[in-house]
Amino acid sequence: MSNQKLFNVAVVGATGAVGEQIIGLLEKRNFPIAELKLLSSARSAGTKITFKGQEHTVEEATPDSFKGVEIALFSAGGDVTKVLAPHAIQHGAVCIDNTNAFRMDPETPLVVPEVNIDKVSEHKGLIANPNCSTIQMVAALKPLYDRYGISRVIVSTYQAVSGAGSRAIDELHRQTREVLAGNEVTPEILPVGALPVKHQIAFNAIPQIDKFTENGYTLEEMKMVRETKKIMGDESIDVTATCVRIPVVNGHSESVYVELKNDYELEDIAKLLQDAPGITLVDDPAGQQYPLASEATGKPDVFVGRLRRDLGSSRGLNMWIVSDNLLKGAAWNAVQIAEYIAIGQK
Amino acid sequence: MSNQKLFNVAVVGATGAVGEQIIGLLEKRNFPIAELKLLSSARSAGTKITFKGQEHTVEEATPDSFKGVEIALFSAGGDVTKVLAPHAIQHGAVCIDNTNAFRMDPETPLVVPEVNIDKVSEHKGLIANPNCSTIQMVAALKPLYDRYGISRVIVSTYQAVSGAGSRAIDELHRQTREVLAGNEVTPEILPVGALPVKHQIAFNAIPQIDKFTENGYTLEEMKMVRETKKIMGDESIDVTATCVRIPVVNGHSESVYVELKNDYELEDIAKLLQDAPGITLVDDPAGQQYPLASEATGKPDVFVGRLRRDLGSSRGLNMWIVSDNLLKGAAWNAVQIAEYIAIGQK
Repeated sequence: MSNQKLFNVAVVGATGAVGEQIIGLLEKRNFPIAELKLLSSARSAGTKITFKGQEHTVEEATPDSFKGVEIALFSAGGDVTKVLAPHAIQHGAVCIDNTNAFRMDPETPLVVPEVNIDKVSEHKGLIANPNCSTIQMVAALKPLYDRYGISRVIVSTYQAVSGAGSRAIDELHRQTREVLAGNEVTPEILPVGALPVKHQIAFNAIPQIDKFTENGYTLEEMKMVRETKKIMGDESIDVTATCVRIPVVNGHSESVYVELKNDYELEDIAKLLQDAPGITLVDDPAGQQYPLASEATGKPDVFVGRLRRDLGSSRGLNMWIVSDNLLKGAAWNAVQIAEYIAIGQK
Repeated sequence: MSNQKLFNVAVVGATGAVGEQIIGLLEKRNFPIAELKLLSSARSAGTKITFKGQEHTVEEATPDSFKGVEIALFSAGGDVTKVLAPHAIQHGAVCIDNTNAFRMDPETPLVVPEVNIDKVSEHKGLIANPNCSTIQMVAALKPLYDRYGISRVIVSTYQAVSGAGSRAIDELHRQTREVLAGNEVTPEILPVGALPVKHQIAFNAIPQIDKFTENGYTLEEMKMVRETKKIMGDESIDVTATCVRIPVVNGHSESVYVELKNDYELEDIAKLLQDAPGITLVDDPAGQQYPLASEATGKPDVFVGRLRRDLGSSRGLNMWIVSDNLLKGAAWNAVQIAEYIAIGQK
């Protein structure tokens, strides 16, 4: 990336789990940065963060923070994006938003670089980063869609607590210790911090992520339904989802049933995935090798395995998709978009 | 059960996790027992077990152990059933086998009392208890099948380690402590004790239960496919399964997508399940109530919730099915069959 134009970059939510990953990736990828602004809520302002050997002080994000900023990466909650992104855009920045605030806004591109990077050019100042569970699924579906077409997707997720923030990670650890010690646990955070009823996550499986919507699906499930159609650019794909939180710290797993529009050869599916950008195929039943959350953590790729044909429908295909929900599911996808904006390549 | 004929009952595998549950249920249900024989391998023989306040000594199971036995409950592995059940039958016993040895044998009824108790009468000395993950699913599917017909089932499981035996429970606890202490873990048992490759189960999701078969599905997945068709008595039902072990000690959860043969009303599905024997409906999204493994453990019922219509297909239905895999998934289902044989009612 030498001899490149350098950019003034802001990270909003710099002290959060995703913000930290974004800053780490900007450093690791040697992103062409002129000035880096680390922004947060008033509460976290003053935090010191080292970037490329230099100490930065996190500042409170305000409408005036974005003067001169050219690329702003938001991951501080939907309300923060709604309030501050218009100011950033007014100051000339392109915003990449990791929240749910604008994902379904028809004016806002919803981008997974491996699927629809071309949509970036349609932005009006803001590009939305999809939900973590959607990103890893559509990245794996795209090569199959292009070759065979997809009529329906039925997905059940096995989601890590890191997707619910650092307090949920603390809760899983705390509850696990209590159960091992033979004590009662008192759930405080999960399934949804803002809702009154709490359930034990240690040694349990909770079939609720985010609030329930009127049709009986949770918001997380509806995100998978709606975002998949928008990112794939095909409203005709039927998607149904069951989203479940399990006692894993980091790394989402997904059991995905896909119905293709045309007959397929399993070997060809494997080859398509092997050749696809951002995908690592791990599929060796004889060697007991398949994607695992424990192996995916810390890696940018989407891992796919357990490929097998539905025994009842010749166009049905089962697959197991695993990825680091904080990386490809959030920070890495956002930085990929930023790199495309900055240097015109994914 | 007073004034009933009393039976000589043998429990083979009396010191195992399922055997212990069977003995507990025989006591709790006040099963009409004349003499109780507790049998095991030579290694566990001599173990003392208290039944109704009386100490019993576990004896080594041999071909001669079954003299006078009228009902024999086997849960000591398929090889033990294959060797000893013929002797038990020769001595006049009816065998209820909890292993995989004879489940798909065309001569052997495969029974879930809520679904096909009538098949018991066709036995030729042996009745097979289905696989845990199948039992809880078909119990919930049966009332829907009877009313609407079922064309296909797509299931993803969230299975507890207790299904892999007490050594797997110990391994989950041990690994969890190691991870919390920041140490490396050395997997020794899971995913399959008899296979060479081991994976971490603590804070992970392993998409392998039992060995792989030639078609890329695991044996556990193929059990769900084949047993469901046999128990429901309908080979036309398409079933596909993804079976996953998660860090839960006890209680299997299942995300089940069902395609019915006819249009349905969601309220009617709820009512059917509410009225069905052995089913408890827990389905209150507004109150954040749904079945949980932590709540199902220790209870005989199959818990069903998260009922919602597929958004793409009007005959598609999603549900979340949870049950204690050692109880309804094994011991309780076997004791239900024994009760039917002994006193002619389920």
